[in-house]
Amino acid sequence: MSKAPSPTEIAARSEQTAPKLRQHLPPTPLERYAAFGEELDADVLVKSEHRQRTGSFKARGSMAKLLTLTAEERERGVVTASTGNHALGVGNALATLGGRGIVYLPENASPSKVAALKRFGLEIRAEGTDSGVLEPKARAYAAEHDLTYISPYNDPDIIAGQGTAAVEILEQLQGNDLDAVVVAVGGGGLISGIAAVLKEHRPDLKVYGASPERDAAMAASIAAGQIIAIEGQETLSDGTAGSIEPGSITFDLCRQLVDDWVLVSEDAIKQALRTVIDTEHQLIEGSAAMAFAAARARHKELQGKRVAIVSCGGNISSTTLAKALA
Amino acid sequence: MSKAPSPTEIAARSEQTAPKLRQHLPPTPLERYAAFGEELDADVLVKSEHRQRTGSFKARGSMAKLLTLTAEERERGVVTASTGNHALGVGNALATLGGRGIVYLPENASPSKVAALKRFGLEIRAEGTDSGVLEPKARAYAAEHDLTYISPYNDPDIIAGQGTAAVEILEQLQGNDLDAVVVAVGGGGLISGIAAVLKEHRPDLKVYGASPERDAAMAASIAAGQIIAIEGQETLSDGTAGSIEPGSITFDLCRQLVDDWVLVSEDAIKQALRTVIDTEHQLIEGSAAMAFAAARARHKELQGKRVAIVSCGGNISSTTLAKALA
Repeated sequence: MSKAPSPTEIAARSEQTAPKLRQHLPPTPLERYAAFGEELDADVLVKSEHRQRTGSFKARGSMAKLLTLTAEERERGVVTASTGNHALGVGNALATLGGRGIVYLPENASPSKVAALKRFGLEIRAEGTDSGVLEPKARAYAAEHDLTYISPYNDPDIIAGQGTAAVEILEQLQGNDLDAVVVAVGGGGLISGIAAVLKEHRPDLKVYGASPERDAAMAASIAAGQIIAIEGQETLSDGTAGSIEPGSITFDLCRQLVDDWVLVSEDAIKQALRTVIDTEHQLIEGSAAMAFAAARARHKELQGKRVAIVSCGGNISSTTLAKALA
Repeated sequence: MSKAPSPTEIAARSEQTAPKLRQHLPPTPLERYAAFGEELDADVLVKSEHRQRTGSFKARGSMAKLLTLTAEERERGVVTASTGNHALGVGNALATLGGRGIVYLPENASPSKVAALKRFGLEIRAEGTDSGVLEPKARAYAAEHDLTYISPYNDPDIIAGQGTAAVEILEQLQGNDLDAVVVAVGGGGLISGIAAVLKEHRPDLKVYGASPERDAAMAASIAAGQIIAIEGQETLSDGTAGSIEPGSITFDLCRQLVDDWVLVSEDAIKQALRTVIDTEHQLIEGSAAMAFAAARARHKELQGKRVAIVSCGGNISSTTLAKALA
């Protein structure tokens, strides 16, 4: 296991990265959701990463990572494995900074996703139908051809990139208090980056990590005291699905930074998605709705507080949306 | 019938209004929708009024109108009748500029809409279940109490306010050509304002007016040579529903400015809504989806052209969305 950087190291790297990132990714809004706040009797501020370029926070980490490479390294090429938001982030960063990229994805990936990735100029390698084997394949191909592998979360630069969302939150608060933050957890890159930055400045802030009941690899690993593999079931929060890579540095960071794990049912995700559509008319994906559901589950302790909910992405298909609203 | 101002007069008023409006309503993005453009073999630029404050273009007209009133007139009060986007626009303008407002709406209006209007500080008058009688009631109340009635579309200031979207489009084009524009038509305020401004600068531009097959009052009136009442049926494009007020100045403006009327089926609206969700992950309301469907219906003549689609709003309920995606 590679040694995990400390939260303070991550926070410092986020703050160094933020001004560079801003040249390529405009800040996303921090918006007050009045109706949801009334329901919770709390001041609810939403960091709108569903309005981020590529439709998710993943654009940050990829951009941060690719900014650490030389133009020559980017031209030689980067490799990743993803069917979703991470690959879009890598594609956007390459289209912005220049360079070439290869994405491993399963043969059954949706045509519209493949089209979106091709539009960014990415080379597609469709192999098998098991997404679990794609990551080692991509790593092996990168090592063999002296290309740079871009992990979705197990990389301090990626985590620090995600943390730039919190650098923006601190600016957008304009000195006002913040009592709590709620963040969806898959591999743990987003919450590690955000919590590291926020706790550096607000040590008393409470960090809630939200995962679906049906697929909560990080919460299960924290409970077990080590990274364990779990058999996840299908969930509306597909953006957080999957096991944690053995040795991931996000494990230690989450253990230090997350104060409360909230496991969310599929019904609660659906209800939150409906609420956000009805009250704010924003399209968010299941993993983002999950963070709203987690805040709702902790409404008693959030009463009278100011809470930031990170709405991590908006990339939901009409088919998934129809299922969620049915 | 009040004499309709000429398109040139409307365009001039829009251009005078735009800089004042901008102090209160930031410009909305004009975004290239690459996937939809590939499908149509056209360069598709979308004016994203679904990202406008209050979730629809209606914020423009109300703000423009209220800017023509004195602070004293606003404080005395304004009256309107609407269950939807127009009332939100009036509420936002009053909350921004100061003043008080009364909204007539039907007793069966949805609680979430009523809550949103109350949040803006509007006084609610729920009367009956027939929205058709609310407008004359609101007008009568305003006249009786020397308050200002705010029409949703039959007012040169409202129309010029909607036209500021086109002032922004012209700036955002940065001198590039534009061959066509597609706009949803209800009362005709939006298309009158937008077409007046665009044709002033691009006389060869083709203007497509889109209405649902099931409720196309303006298209029917134009075909009849005069404003006629029609029996509209329920449509996903609820934002454009309803008859045209007798004597509305938008009739003459539409007759002069709209080159082609496109009547859109409910199925085509649903398909367009799905396409925008799947390719751009944007939540738009039925009336906005209708404009995309109209562009799709004219794909042969739009081939190789640059077309602006006005995505007029994003205020759709989860119930309506579920029906549309079913």
